[in-house]
Amino acid sequence: MLETLKEEVLLANRRLAASGLAVLTWGNASGIDVASGLVVIKPSGVEYDAMTAADMVVVDLEGNVVEGSLRPSSDTPTHLEIYRNFAGVAGVVHTHSVEATAWSQALREIPCLGTTHADVFHGPVPVTRMLSAEEVAGDYELNTGKAIIERFADLEPLAVPGVLVAGHAPFTWGGSPRQAVDNAIALEAIARMARLTESLHALTPAPELPRYVGEKHYLRKHGKNAYYGQIGRG
Amino acid sequence: MLETLKEEVLLANRRLAASGLAVLTWGNASGIDVASGLVVIKPSGVEYDAMTAADMVVVDLEGNVVEGSLRPSSDTPTHLEIYRNFAGVAGVVHTHSVEATAWSQALREIPCLGTTHADVFHGPVPVTRMLSAEEVAGDYELNTGKAIIERFADLEPLAVPGVLVAGHAPFTWGGSPRQAVDNAIALEAIARMARLTESLHALTPAPELPRYVGEKHYLRKHGKNAYYGQIGRG
Amino acid sequence: MLETLKEEVLLANRRLAASGLAVLTWGNASGIDVASGLVVIKPSGVEYDAMTAADMVVVDLEGNVVEGSLRPSSDTPTHLEIYRNFAGVAGVVHTHSVEATAWSQALREIPCLGTTHADVFHGPVPVTRMLSAEEVAGDYELNTGKAIIERFADLEPLAVPGVLVAGHAPFTWGGSPRQAVDNAIALEAIARMARLTESLHALTPAPELPRYVGEKHYLRKHGKNAYYGQIGRG
Amino acid sequence: MLETLKEEVLLANRRLAASGLAVLTWGNASGIDVASGLVVIKPSGVEYDAMTAADMVVVDLEGNVVEGSLRPSSDTPTHLEIYRNFAGVAGVVHTHSVEATAWSQALREIPCLGTTHADVFHGPVPVTRMLSAEEVAGDYELNTGKAIIERFADLEPLAVPGVLVAGHAPFTWGGSPRQAVDNAIALEAIARMARLTESLHALTPAPELPRYVGEKHYLRKHGKNAYYGQIGRG
Repeated sequence: MLETLKEEVLLANRRLAASGLAVLTWGNASGIDVASGLVVIKPSGVEYDAMTAADMVVVDLEGNVVEGSLRPSSDTPTHLEIYRNFAGVAGVVHTHSVEATAWSQALREIPCLGTTHADVFHGPVPVTRMLSAEEVAGDYELNTGKAIIERFADLEPLAVPGVLVAGHAPFTWGGSPRQAVDNAIALEAIARMARLTESLHALTPAPELPRYVGEKHYLRKHGKNAYYGQIGRG
Repeated sequence: MLETLKEEVLLANRRLAASGLAVLTWGNASGIDVASGLVVIKPSGVEYDAMTAADMVVVDLEGNVVEGSLRPSSDTPTHLEIYRNFAGVAGVVHTHSVEATAWSQALREIPCLGTTHADVFHGPVPVTRMLSAEEVAGDYELNTGKAIIERFADLEPLAVPGVLVAGHAPFTWGGSPRQAVDNAIALEAIARMARLTESLHALTPAPELPRYVGEKHYLRKHGKNAYYGQIGRG
Repeated sequence: MLETLKEEVLLANRRLAASGLAVLTWGNASGIDVASGLVVIKPSGVEYDAMTAADMVVVDLEGNVVEGSLRPSSDTPTHLEIYRNFAGVAGVVHTHSVEATAWSQALREIPCLGTTHADVFHGPVPVTRMLSAEEVAGDYELNTGKAIIERFADLEPLAVPGVLVAGHAPFTWGGSPRQAVDNAIALEAIARMARLTESLHALTPAPELPRYVGEKHYLRKHGKNAYYGQIGRG
Repeated sequence: MLETLKEEVLLANRRLAASGLAVLTWGNASGIDVASGLVVIKPSGVEYDAMTAADMVVVDLEGNVVEGSLRPSSDTPTHLEIYRNFAGVAGVVHTHSVEATAWSQALREIPCLGTTHADVFHGPVPVTRMLSAEEVAGDYELNTGKAIIERFADLEPLAVPGVLVAGHAPFTWGGSPRQAVDNAIALEAIARMARLTESLHALTPAPELPRYVGEKHYLRKHGKNAYYGQIGRG
């Protein structure tokens, strides 16, 4: 079942390793078949090179394994909470990519310091609150997802396609597993650019991009007046 | 038409990805056929691996598509403004390479701190002013090009073969698409060296290279008394 | 003798080079055959590409060469001291990987700033004391091992699978040569993440991860209630 | 003539590019045939991939081209000054590797902060004085070599196998072209480790390695009591 989606999810996971975002087995990508509500996700703790499409695990939106002999990623409940709440999201990625993780660990949102950022994120990259001891002792990965949803109460998930989980690492998403990986790659570059920009302003805050420039860049790539890329292509 | 130039432009674009200057589709190279005034440029939003020479788009200096079924890079008006104003420039490159972008975002020109810099840039790497809200709301990419030209009112483009666009990222150029890529690679290295040099002088300004050393290095590689490289070779 | 272990140790050493942890010949991995008490280790000063399984040196726990025509790594006495004292350790790795070495040189333990750290190390990554002039003049590599054992007087080696030797570089270990390499790769990433997190808090200390989050992450990967990875797989 | 040495010098130059020390054509390696006093060096401005052994240029110690149709590296007079003055040196390398160049630009010697440094350099990595305007206007590359020799008035070149040229970049050397490249790779790693160590001690100076530890590490790899590596092998 869902053979095409399994291939897409396999490729998305492999690309996490190939692009340097994931070392060892620290990263997972999933995709949803919107029609059936079934999610295909990486098996837990398996290496990227060793995986095949047949190893991908199919779960329903409540987390029941529908197909697959391996256990799904331990982060599956976080992925599912995102799919249940963010309409239009069809791919989710979690990595511990170094630069984005550093901002997550610093408990700092990434301010918009340039057009690279504005091309992908409509506003700062948000950071969740730290979970409470009770939330960690309870259904930890589900509560991680709930903290993400809570943080997006006033944000549009498709315009801000990623988040920094406090003390942990980033999640990104998009209209497909591939787009979710693209956004993970972009986030890592943006996080690095912002850190370096700050280091060049060691004694004063780095200058934020004027809002009108950011708006322009976001809107030339997204929405009905976008003019970047090919019409009718990815 | 212009098959050789299309190959050159294709290779220049692929080298942006291969050298790590461009991630995803964030970078574009173009070349001009001086005799006809036709410019060959990367199609917008297409991946480097997937492109062929036949995908390159041919535009005239006013931006009309002369050949090609894909849309040209959204940054085409900036490239064209450079070709229209900088005599001798036959290749233009735009990337969001991380180190040069950090200086662009920091709104700082790169001072000449060593001979690597002096070998390529005759003086600091300049940064444009930030565009006004009106310029952004208008013909944004053209106005980006105009801000570059404005910044070079008192500079020689072939001696200072690149610029940092404020809040955005670098453009570089040269006598061919290949040279424009060489200069993009050099700029990224120079930007990184300057940042690291500063970080080794955290409490005091990094020492500028004596002007006479910089002059010597620039002139041993450029101009009529140059003695670097092979006579009669690239 | 020990052909399978020699292959494992060869692959572990090659992976040090392939993962960028070791440049030139600066890194060595070993493994122990618990039944016989024999240790297989990299020969000294030999390049990773040039080595074969037959070049691996077999030594007993007192350091006598049992098989092999090459001299064992000069760090062999440190490896042996670890095997003699840390029950359950069957693989040891030493590298001069840059980020972990920087913390070693700074004489600073790595605080737990995020879940990536907590996934692998149960608490801070410890640093040894500096050896005395007498210890250095004596059996230096053995005394390096003794300083490691001394530092672990109140620590559980399998829960804290690595150490920073003061002024020198890291050692890591695990239940197999492969796990020891995994832990060396993880340590390098953790060291880099911690440094970058600090740099984003230049004027204030970086926030430590709440202890309850660290405990959760460590215990979801380790021990009887772990639920990361596949049951019954490595 | 000197076919073996040409192969060695070719491989040494290619390794500069492969190891990331040289971008574009910014780096050159040479070797001397001690018996004849002839030096084989990279041609100027030629790309590493495009070179063959036959492209290597043979010069005598006065800089006269003895064989070869291409012009030798513009840095040849610096290489020759090193060969003329440093007995036992049979290979010289010059790169603009980023980390070592940053220290050169910062006009700072690299202090010995750890055993990686002590394994290769017997004491700090020295920096030359800046050349005077007269020296730059005169025989610049020769005067660069003279400033290196001057800096080594009280240093042993084979124990301190490299130098930072002020405002410029490093030169390294060794008993063969291959060893000179090894030392260039080592210097780049040492320079990076020292910078990162400093950044972890932002408010206080980084701790220097006790002298007795440095001595031990240098002497376990070098000299008559060395016990690192294989006896009778490189």
